[in-house]
Amino acid sequence: MPRLMIRNVSVLVVPEQGECRVDDAQDVHVQDDLIVAITPTDPSDQADEVIDGTGLLAMPGLVNSHTHSPMVMMRGAAEDLAIEDWFNQRIWPMEVNLTPERVRVGARLACAEMLLGGVTMFVDHYFHADQIAAAAIESGIRADLAPTFFSSMEKGTEAALDATRALARLHPRITACLGPHATYTVNEDDLRRAAEVARDEGFRIHLHAAETDDQTQASLDKYGATPIQVLERTGVLDAGVLIAHGCGIRVTDLAILERYADRTAVASCPKVYLKLAMGEVTPIKGLQAAGVSVGVGTDGAAVHNTLDVWEAIRMVALTQKQRENDAEWMTISDTLRLATRGSAAAAGLTGKVGVLEVGHQADVALVDLSGPHNQPLHDPRAALVYSVRASDVVTVLVAGQIVVRDRRLTTMDLDEVVADARSLAHTLVDLSAGGAVQHYDP
Amino acid sequence: MPRLMIRNVSVLVVPEQGECRVDDAQDVHVQDDLIVAITPTDPSDQADEVIDGTGLLAMPGLVNSHTHSPMVMMRGAAEDLAIEDWFNQRIWPMEVNLTPERVRVGARLACAEMLLGGVTMFVDHYFHADQIAAAAIESGIRADLAPTFFSSMEKGTEAALDATRALARLHPRITACLGPHATYTVNEDDLRRAAEVARDEGFRIHLHAAETDDQTQASLDKYGATPIQVLERTGVLDAGVLIAHGCGIRVTDLAILERYADRTAVASCPKVYLKLAMGEVTPIKGLQAAGVSVGVGTDGAAVHNTLDVWEAIRMVALTQKQRENDAEWMTISDTLRLATRGSAAAAGLTGKVGVLEVGHQADVALVDLSGPHNQPLHDPRAALVYSVRASDVVTVLVAGQIVVRDRRLTTMDLDEVVADARSLAHTLVDLSAGGAVQHYDP
Repeated sequence: MPRLMIRNVSVLVVPEQGECRVDDAQDVHVQDDLIVAITPTDPSDQADEVIDGTGLLAMPGLVNSHTHSPMVMMRGAAEDLAIEDWFNQRIWPMEVNLTPERVRVGARLACAEMLLGGVTMFVDHYFHADQIAAAAIESGIRADLAPTFFSSMEKGTEAALDATRALARLHPRITACLGPHATYTVNEDDLRRAAEVARDEGFRIHLHAAETDDQTQASLDKYGATPIQVLERTGVLDAGVLIAHGCGIRVTDLAILERYADRTAVASCPKVYLKLAMGEVTPIKGLQAAGVSVGVGTDGAAVHNTLDVWEAIRMVALTQKQRENDAEWMTISDTLRLATRGSAAAAGLTGKVGVLEVGHQADVALVDLSGPHNQPLHDPRAALVYSVRASDVVTVLVAGQIVVRDRRLTTMDLDEVVADARSLAHTLVDLSAGGAVQHYDP
Repeated sequence: MPRLMIRNVSVLVVPEQGECRVDDAQDVHVQDDLIVAITPTDPSDQADEVIDGTGLLAMPGLVNSHTHSPMVMMRGAAEDLAIEDWFNQRIWPMEVNLTPERVRVGARLACAEMLLGGVTMFVDHYFHADQIAAAAIESGIRADLAPTFFSSMEKGTEAALDATRALARLHPRITACLGPHATYTVNEDDLRRAAEVARDEGFRIHLHAAETDDQTQASLDKYGATPIQVLERTGVLDAGVLIAHGCGIRVTDLAILERYADRTAVASCPKVYLKLAMGEVTPIKGLQAAGVSVGVGTDGAAVHNTLDVWEAIRMVALTQKQRENDAEWMTISDTLRLATRGSAAAAGLTGKVGVLEVGHQADVALVDLSGPHNQPLHDPRAALVYSVRASDVVTVLVAGQIVVRDRRLTTMDLDEVVADARSLAHTLVDLSAGGAVQHYDP
């Protein structure tokens, strides 16, 4: 008898190509952390624990493929600013105030927000990543963590590489990447060092690159190479990389990326690109044509304001139709595929998460589409892209564990998590100490 | 003793210019349908009915400044299509199926969705508007209704003008506009007739114009005039108009609109412009510089998929920053002003709704910003634009009546409203009868 069963649920099926579909009246059987069977519902099926899925839709838990989770502590504290001022006047001066405790408190809040919204995994890039790991482990969420470093940090590179090594051994739900911040804050020597460790020890690299076309032009002016060319010549592309944003990836870069497509992914977070008036969005059509995986993320809440991956998915569909001037592009099925298989690939976990199939991790979001904003339900797939809200998520499983039940966290006391964040929030935005962790001048 | 009081609430104050602010610990006193006082909270204040506003934010009820409410019946049934196919392959063939009953059932669902999301008024443009009025009256929402007509409808113009006249006398919460569909579906004779009736009888006109730049170019090619020039020469601008969308308004049109700015408004619904890949968004900066009022709307749910005005507000801020390539433009305060004062002006009710001030209608949304997706709350104004969800709305008043209490409708049985819509949904999307109510060829 399996340990757990979701009974009589509609299951979102996302094939590798073609139309997504919804199979009604299914039983999803879970043993330990795995999906072991998905069968037409049968009242005689039994399990130790049964979740009634009647009227609900089961889909792969969402993956937030690029964020800085503890930045929820700065939510709403850096508004209406262009990217230079956002970094130099607000964010990097604020980050002088980071402490392990504040990072942990922020990460706990972030995990709570994400789990309650159906996010079962996040791909993070931040400081004090051991604290983020602790919050993730406590909350029950899955995480891939990249300890951030700048070349300007004394002994920062080696310390960050060690932090990645430590994280990788920590917990079955935690994976780790090497985390050079960006091509404009980490020099080529340090990028080469990261690429070497990545290749030798089997890590991926997660970093920001070609965030805007201005950055690409600045890189050409300073180094005679686009950020993508810098990643190639330092061995980062060869090692395997998750690139955040990539809005400044040029057509000529696509031919380079195509050569490393089997180990390259890009995370797109378009709400941020519009909010910071960055001028471009990720060139997803070209990247996908080059065979590069593309996922969807929120980026940090200091600019995205939420860690709502539904919102991010919708923005990908809308901004891609806009970018390509083609309403028939980035269809509902393609959007759902990007948000599930694409984000799983960006997280480095293809074959393990991102689809509801036998042998995959039981990372599941159960969604209630009966609310008036989703009804009548001509097409549940359309609802998932264009009308669902994070608050429609009812129950969430990660690795077979029920972490949200009937819209409540089972792993943490939400009131305490929020109260802790409120009590420390002022310490993060206090600029009286002066200084900054970095200066934006790509 | 006043009839009703919201005790100890934070109040969003939206001045005509400058920064919005939040005044904490206020009591909002309501007599009949009006706000009669807003005072620092005082435990000795009494009322017949007291709503505890502790921990909540009171803001003007949202105004959806352009929609077609019964189109919720087609939610998710016309996806991934460009504007021509959206109209000609799906929407206008579907509208052959409209009946008074189906319109009413759809409008009831729309009213439920909007009220639960803090929308206290909608500005509608559709067929069988008497049925929409009945749903609005039943639900407790406020509405401005324009009975739609095309020149291709036999005797349609006079019948629609009569329908507007009848609506205007119906109920204190219902106002009415004349509703020619668009400059590309209503000829100049009929636009002149509408303008004449509008001027003679004191109505405003609500119509679609210059939705895309393609429409503007087509109008120039066919008529030697932009849609805005057509509106001027037919007297529509002189009569006073609410223009839906206006993405194709050209710089040269702005000088024309400036001359009628005191009676002109434009409703912007940007999710739709991206989804249909229309190529432009409303030129809000130019319109505001010309003195024209701009409001925010959802358009119909057959393309917007929700009637969530929060989503629409956020999309206005994001797409305007993108359009102007300026992250410091369409600030939080300016966005909130557009969404409140701007939308009230678009609805023709400046001085009556859109702000929480003494003498205005008691149309109020109480919002709970304590959820993890809004916390910590460095700036509640930022939360209202960038992180709030419709599900954060707790209590809603329209004209001093409590229409939503603790997230539940007081006026209608939501389960019945949704069930009715589900039972009729298939009849709307059935294309077996053939034909169409109109053909898109601007």
